[in-house]
Amino acid sequence: MLHRFKITEMGNRAFWLRGKEREHLVRVLRLGPGDRLIGFDNSGGEWLAEVAEIAEESVTCVIVAESRPDVEAHREVVLAAGLTKGEKLEWVIQKGTELGMRSFIPLRTKRSVLRLEGGKARERVERWQKIAAEAAKQSGRVQEPRVRAVSDWAELPESLPRGCQCLIPYEAERVRGLKSVLNTLERGRSVVLLIGPEGGFDPAEVAWAEDHLQAIRVSLGPRILRAETAALAALTMVLADSGDLG
Amino acid sequence: MLHRFKITEMGNRAFWLRGKEREHLVRVLRLGPGDRLIGFDNSGGEWLAEVAEIAEESVTCVIVAESRPDVEAHREVVLAAGLTKGEKLEWVIQKGTELGMRSFIPLRTKRSVLRLEGGKARERVERWQKIAAEAAKQSGRVQEPRVRAVSDWAELPESLPRGCQCLIPYEAERVRGLKSVLNTLERGRSVVLLIGPEGGFDPAEVAWAEDHLQAIRVSLGPRILRAETAALAALTMVLADSGDLG
Repeated sequence: MLHRFKITEMGNRAFWLRGKEREHLVRVLRLGPGDRLIGFDNSGGEWLAEVAEIAEESVTCVIVAESRPDVEAHREVVLAAGLTKGEKLEWVIQKGTELGMRSFIPLRTKRSVLRLEGGKARERVERWQKIAAEAAKQSGRVQEPRVRAVSDWAELPESLPRGCQCLIPYEAERVRGLKSVLNTLERGRSVVLLIGPEGGFDPAEVAWAEDHLQAIRVSLGPRILRAETAALAALTMVLADSGDLG
Repeated sequence: MLHRFKITEMGNRAFWLRGKEREHLVRVLRLGPGDRLIGFDNSGGEWLAEVAEIAEESVTCVIVAESRPDVEAHREVVLAAGLTKGEKLEWVIQKGTELGMRSFIPLRTKRSVLRLEGGKARERVERWQKIAAEAAKQSGRVQEPRVRAVSDWAELPESLPRGCQCLIPYEAERVRGLKSVLNTLERGRSVVLLIGPEGGFDPAEVAWAEDHLQAIRVSLGPRILRAETAALAALTMVLADSGDLG
C-alpha cells in the first residue's frame, strides 16, 4: 500500500510537503525521486503523485491522478465526551477516527477528575488533533476529524451541527434502547453522542441536556460499560445503522 | 452500589469468600460484620448477603436474598482473535467482557508477531482470565467469559459452540457487509468472530476458515480498522443486532 501524506501546499499539477510530512518522507520512509505516494488535503480528495524533488524545506510531488474515494462515513456523528484522566480519551479519539467519527468535543463535566483550562487545555487539544490526524491517515480517511476546544455545557450548543439529534447514553435509562431510537431516526440526520466521564453524568447534567439540547436518554443494555467502551459501542451502533460500517 | 465478590464456596444459607476475594473485602474495602455485598458464582445467579464473620482463612456471608438478573447477553458471541503484541488483547478482553462476549479464543496466526507456547501461553491465558473476571465484576455480569487456551487453526473447531456461524471480517471483502449478513442470521444462533492480528489474516487462513468453518467473509466498511478496533466494532454490531446492547 502506498504511504499517505498530508499536503502542505496544493498546486495545479503538483503539491508540496513540508515540516513533519517532509521529515517523515525523507528520514523515516527514505523515499526519493520517482517514488509514488498518496497526498490528501482534508478536502475529501486524494492524489496519486510521484516525488519529483527533495529540497531543504519541502518535497515537490508531481500529481499523477486524482480521486475522491468514498471512504468517509455518510452520516455525520459527533462525539462529545466528558474529560477523563489517563489515556482513555486518546484512544477513544484514535478508535473513533477509524470508525468514522466526524468531530470530537472534550466536555467539562461535574464528575470529570481531569481539569483542563487555558494553555493546558489548548496543548491537550493539539495533541488530540495529532492523534486524530494520525489515525485518519492510517485508516485511509481523506478528512481528519476535528477536535474542538474543551467545552463547558453552556458552550456546547455552538459547536453542534445544525438540526442534529443528541443522544445521551445513561445508565439510569432502562427502557429506551439506543437501537430502538436509531430505528426512528432519519438517515440523513447528524447525530451527537454525549458520553459521560468515569462515574457517569450527574443527573442535573442529563436534565440540562434534555432541556437545552433535546437530548434523548438511551440505554446501552444491562451491563455497566466504562466510559470509553460506551463511547465506542454507541459510535459503532450509530455508524452501523447508517450503513457506514459495512 | 454494593461491591461484588466471586463466591469461593456456596452453602445453603451462606457462602464463603477466600483468597483474593477475602483479601479485597478485608484489606481494600475494609468491610466488616453487618456490611452488605453481592456474591456471584458464575452460575447465572447472584446473592445479596451480609458479612457474618471474618476469619483468618475465609469470610462468612449470610444470604439475604437470591436473584437471577437478566444481565447476560442472550446471543452467544465468541471472539477468536489473532495474537498481537502489547496490551491490545488485554483491552479487547476487558471491553469485550463489558459488551457481553461469552468466550475468547487467542489464535496463533501466520502474521502474529507474538509467539506463545507451553508455560508462557498458559500464564498469559491465566492473566487474560483474571482480566475477564475483573471486567465481569465491574460490569455487573453474573458469568465471566471463559478465556480458552491459545489455539492453532486446527484446534479451533473443537472449542466452537455447536451450530455456530463463523464470521471473518476481512479487508479484501468489499461487497458483503457484516450488517447485511446479520440481517439473514437467526437470532438464536451463536456467532463466532474471527479477528486477524495486526497486518490481518493471510489469504490462506481466510480460505481455510471458509472451507473448514464455513466462515463468511464480511466487510466492516471502507476505512481500515486496527485489529482491536475491528474486534470491538464487530462484537458491538453482533450484540446490538440481537438486542443485547439496548
